[in-house]
Amino acid sequence: MQKNALYAQSGGVTSVINASACGVIQTARAHPDRIGRVFAADNGILGVLNEDLIDLDQESPETIAALKHTPGGAFRSCRFDLGDFESHRHQYERLIEVFEAHDIGYFFYNGGGGSMLTARKVAWLSEKMGHPIVCMGIPKTIDNDLPLTDTSPGFGSAAKYIATSVREVSFDLSSMATTSTKVFVLEVMGRHAGWLAAAAGLAFEGEDPPLLLLLAEVPHDSARFLNALRDKVHRHGWCIVVAAEGLRCVDGQFCGVEQASPIFGHEQLGGLAPKLAHQIREGLGYKTHWAVSDYFQRSARHLASAVDVEQAYAVGRAGVELALAGKNAMMPVIRRLSSRPYFWEIDAVNLTEVADVEMPVPPSFIREDGYGITEVAREYMAPLIEGESYPPFVHGLPDYARIRGVKVPKKLSAWGG
Amino acid sequence: MQKNALYAQSGGVTSVINASACGVIQTARAHPDRIGRVFAADNGILGVLNEDLIDLDQESPETIAALKHTPGGAFRSCRFDLGDFESHRHQYERLIEVFEAHDIGYFFYNGGGGSMLTARKVAWLSEKMGHPIVCMGIPKTIDNDLPLTDTSPGFGSAAKYIATSVREVSFDLSSMATTSTKVFVLEVMGRHAGWLAAAAGLAFEGEDPPLLLLLAEVPHDSARFLNALRDKVHRHGWCIVVAAEGLRCVDGQFCGVEQASPIFGHEQLGGLAPKLAHQIREGLGYKTHWAVSDYFQRSARHLASAVDVEQAYAVGRAGVELALAGKNAMMPVIRRLSSRPYFWEIDAVNLTEVADVEMPVPPSFIREDGYGITEVAREYMAPLIEGESYPPFVHGLPDYARIRGVKVPKKLSAWGG
Repeated sequence: MQKNALYAQSGGVTSVINASACGVIQTARAHPDRIGRVFAADNGILGVLNEDLIDLDQESPETIAALKHTPGGAFRSCRFDLGDFESHRHQYERLIEVFEAHDIGYFFYNGGGGSMLTARKVAWLSEKMGHPIVCMGIPKTIDNDLPLTDTSPGFGSAAKYIATSVREVSFDLSSMATTSTKVFVLEVMGRHAGWLAAAAGLAFEGEDPPLLLLLAEVPHDSARFLNALRDKVHRHGWCIVVAAEGLRCVDGQFCGVEQASPIFGHEQLGGLAPKLAHQIREGLGYKTHWAVSDYFQRSARHLASAVDVEQAYAVGRAGVELALAGKNAMMPVIRRLSSRPYFWEIDAVNLTEVADVEMPVPPSFIREDGYGITEVAREYMAPLIEGESYPPFVHGLPDYARIRGVKVPKKLSAWGG
Repeated sequence: MQKNALYAQSGGVTSVINASACGVIQTARAHPDRIGRVFAADNGILGVLNEDLIDLDQESPETIAALKHTPGGAFRSCRFDLGDFESHRHQYERLIEVFEAHDIGYFFYNGGGGSMLTARKVAWLSEKMGHPIVCMGIPKTIDNDLPLTDTSPGFGSAAKYIATSVREVSFDLSSMATTSTKVFVLEVMGRHAGWLAAAAGLAFEGEDPPLLLLLAEVPHDSARFLNALRDKVHRHGWCIVVAAEGLRCVDGQFCGVEQASPIFGHEQLGGLAPKLAHQIREGLGYKTHWAVSDYFQRSARHLASAVDVEQAYAVGRAGVELALAGKNAMMPVIRRLSSRPYFWEIDAVNLTEVADVEMPVPPSFIREDGYGITEVAREYMAPLIEGESYPPFVHGLPDYARIRGVKVPKKLSAWGG
């Protein structure tokens, strides 16, 4: 029996989430006997509720192929989750309306842990309401905090960007340190897990690199940190500090959030990096520069990891293959077979096992002093940044795909929310 | 007559200053009849004063060739300038001592406008003190503010990095804007000139891009800016703001410098980007992300402009060729012959014409509203970011050169300063 398929993107995007889209769409198109038309929701699950569907038949095969090297979310992503089944039954009834109106039998939701909870909820349509829908989660997150998978597509490329950038800065800083800047502070993403800060550890080899990592998993003690930094600068002449935005001080509070001002009564400006730089200047007197990568680390497709791109595509393809094999409410995962060389295969887990579960950097990955990574961590992360996957450049700039985004004519009345 | 040559790096480094080093060293080595040994000073002019000389005969041809793709300053750079001739005559006498001790007849100083002033002063040794030394300036600066040259080596690569990163972020931001972040603020370098902020204009085509540039050349009026931003977000749904760190408010003060705190009596934390993001949140209520590129924009050799690398090498080579042709106290410059296609040749100017002269973005390059670039600016900048020049990668990370750095045995007593 032929049914239509619907794909949607959710949560913070990555430089390779469109490679997963490409995997889903190309694989779905390869099975015209089972899958009829292929749609994408505009703005994730919100697009489904609003019946904002993009007709992918209007996109050329070349555009779909070019998604593999295009950052951002081509079909737009949302920060919106479905409510509880009991209290938000109208949302679920609306989903059924939309799925029925457009004969959608397959739903693929591409996101992180929170989005997998929403995918899990969509699967309730068949379990609790008897509406036949095959729902698959497709993993993505630069935070690498999804459980039961070797890695989350998006992490490898962000890790490669951070490790490369830190290595490059080390060549700059080491040439300036004698008469100028001695410390460089970089703030990276990671509210609850320090995977991206840990990735900076790949920039250096050897036992005692001029690098201090401040992971979200290790409570931050300012005095101990300044001592460690002074020690590094004494030995190397300079040092790089990479801090996870979710760093917590020993009192359990986020270090990067400023106290409310006694004068203005609102939050002060600034994030973690300028705050650390300030402490370093005040405490040690070193000239300090700081940078905040923010969206760059998750959109720098020009520096994507080839392994990451391949895995992102593979989980998209596997989602469709699992659906066609009669599975439901699952998420494809990556299973590591060996580290050197890196061999992996695709496996699958139930959405219930991954929905809203966060996996921090394990203690065995964190050096005893808390400021670095262990060999175990290096062996784990190194394969994930392997290989370059450059996008095409035209006139000096990357040539990324833009979809036409032709909407499917609406058949229902507007959703009241 | 055969003399030895000395090369040194000065001021903030770039991702291609070592390509100029490569040009100087390879060209000097190609003329053994005229140039004997080739040395590099460790830490710029300070290394000369301290007689800290690196013996480049100890570096392999492969290492010298690899400098062409290695960021930072391989021989270390300094923020130190020579004093006035009259009041600091001991510095000049020391230079002669060192040059004589090591039979140095050629001196190549690689830096920006301030460093060209120091190069100019070294040339006084022959003019005012009768000591025969051929002194050449080799241009570099990401700020692009050197006069009389089409561009400064280092700018094209930094511009390519910024334009590429802004284009990539535009794909991220546009996918999130409906339910999350609507504005992204990027702070780029440029204390006195807004060339790097202007380069972000290359990221978009068309008349009305979702982009506002805050150039150092245009006094910043907060209210007018917030109005322009609201207008952009209304029309596009989102907007990117790129600000030069040297942005000045209408009162003439740097916008990025916080007022002294009435409580703590010292400078507040934070730079321009968090301050602008704060104003946007407070003034317009948009969720705003911000990033600061800092050293990344000048060390991102992985994204260098091929044109820039070629020009950086060419000015290094030309410096040696000019010296061998009997010229003195000059700096090679790039002369544009045509924009489409970009044809250029090497010319030379006297150091007096470029020393300590800063060239801002000209008014004809700035859009009437002050928040964008004109077609004239685009035609000027576009050729400078053309072509990719990827470094080799090993195990997922760029493989950059490190010199052995064997020091030349000292012949003089330590310099007292």
